[in-house]
Amino acid sequence: MLGGIEAGGTKFICGLGTGPGDLYYEPVPTTTPDETIARVIDFFEAHGSADLRGVGIGSFGPVDLNPGSPHYGHITSTPKTGWQNCDLRGRIQRGLNVPVGFDTDVNAAVLGEARWGAAKGLSDAVYLTVGTGIGGGVIAQGRLVHGLVHPEMGHLRIPHDLSRDPFPGTCPYHGDCLEGLACGPAMKARWGVPAKDLPESHEAWPLEAHYIALGLVNVAVTLSPQRILLGGGVMQKAHLFPMIRHEFLMLLNGYVQHPAITNGLDSFIVAPPLAPWSGVLGCLALAERAIKGDLA
Amino acid sequence: MLGGIEAGGTKFICGLGTGPGDLYYEPVPTTTPDETIARVIDFFEAHGSADLRGVGIGSFGPVDLNPGSPHYGHITSTPKTGWQNCDLRGRIQRGLNVPVGFDTDVNAAVLGEARWGAAKGLSDAVYLTVGTGIGGGVIAQGRLVHGLVHPEMGHLRIPHDLSRDPFPGTCPYHGDCLEGLACGPAMKARWGVPAKDLPESHEAWPLEAHYIALGLVNVAVTLSPQRILLGGGVMQKAHLFPMIRHEFLMLLNGYVQHPAITNGLDSFIVAPPLAPWSGVLGCLALAERAIKGDLA
Repeated sequence: MLGGIEAGGTKFICGLGTGPGDLYYEPVPTTTPDETIARVIDFFEAHGSADLRGVGIGSFGPVDLNPGSPHYGHITSTPKTGWQNCDLRGRIQRGLNVPVGFDTDVNAAVLGEARWGAAKGLSDAVYLTVGTGIGGGVIAQGRLVHGLVHPEMGHLRIPHDLSRDPFPGTCPYHGDCLEGLACGPAMKARWGVPAKDLPESHEAWPLEAHYIALGLVNVAVTLSPQRILLGGGVMQKAHLFPMIRHEFLMLLNGYVQHPAITNGLDSFIVAPPLAPWSGVLGCLALAERAIKGDLA
Repeated sequence: MLGGIEAGGTKFICGLGTGPGDLYYEPVPTTTPDETIARVIDFFEAHGSADLRGVGIGSFGPVDLNPGSPHYGHITSTPKTGWQNCDLRGRIQRGLNVPVGFDTDVNAAVLGEARWGAAKGLSDAVYLTVGTGIGGGVIAQGRLVHGLVHPEMGHLRIPHDLSRDPFPGTCPYHGDCLEGLACGPAMKARWGVPAKDLPESHEAWPLEAHYIALGLVNVAVTLSPQRILLGGGVMQKAHLFPMIRHEFLMLLNGYVQHPAITNGLDSFIVAPPLAPWSGVLGCLALAERAIKGDLA
């Protein structure tokens, strides 16, 4: 049995199973680290810790992914009160005493899709989540990308036509970066209504599709993924997908000549089929890797 | 003995050696494929084809890097007359009858620096060239990134403040993408003077540094490289480096907390020490890989 912990700012999804066919999960609300981690450990003890061979954690961040660092497995400089410098991986490891894999929430999501979903068999794929924030997980040449810290695609700088959209953006660091212009809270701040309540005919959606497509073009010319998966709360609006595909093609303007792009983008820009469980399933895949001693 | 061919739009640099210590090279002007390829083969036959164990090619593009494709090793949809669909790798392989490695010119450059220069020992590095065009080579988690096609970082979309810079950009596909705003020909078109003749005090340089820094921020939040190498003709102006580092920090605005960034960027954004031979040396490294049967 594998364990997965998708550690989010609102809740921790705890999962047990071996894949999509037998996943059992429960949410634990994110309160203090002490309380939250204790309840996560309670979950695994109550539901089969005797059979537990390993656990994977996909965490909100920023996190330290360098196995050689003294802070490996910590949540680092998060603005979330109480969670700065939290040794999440170490505390779970000591509590459950099994191998623990650790990565970002979005890397877990792309890994879950690579193991069982829409990125299966691909060497290069991106999972972008558009919700409370915007973040991206990356598999390049078959490996999860970490690098110096880890990707932070929400903070891409994109063109912002102030005459079309005078909204200054919500990012406390950058104002009108991709996240500042296109995350759920930015939509709510711009239009005065939560994204989920904006009708499909609202002018908010062409603008949202434009910004997301700008972000995807930048991701595509930097990483050349074989497929981009778009998840998160805002992407629950299925009518966004054809709008984003259209904008993406307009922006690319014929530059990339490959059938995956020129023959339409229906299988290039897709909804993650495992959603909303891509992340916790990816955590099971991180657990598999940790059992094999593979921390990268 | 290893052979390297840095295939550019103006010249092919042909090299022989085993590394930076014994590189012998000659340029061959890029004319027609028939004439150019014949002269490249002549170079290797005149200078030691008996000892030649393998050749690496780093080519201008777009190119087909998929070893499973019938067009593997071809230059594909280039605007360069006569070179569309040129089977560059196949013709070199048949002419020299040794293993031939093949990648983009910029991937060769980052590989050369990873083998012998400023990316040695790094798992994640980017080489961005700013010259006649703008392009980027990527090593992520220790591997050259290809993906669906290959990275094309010149075509990043970045903010363009038309009130500060009304120049519309030179990219025939996108107008004011990074390349359209910041490549050498864009500087010449905007200011009426070639970049090399603009004095260091010219207002062109803060603007150029701003655009390059915007591109680097986008690369950094997507790939999280441990180091970025900036080469190409425009980057011969050494005063650009501190300006770009300053702009990069201003744009990032404290978001990424890592000593490589917060302790100054002198070893994060650097000039490639092997330049202008990063590329042809990387081609020798591609030859090494091809001899071992490693085409990725």
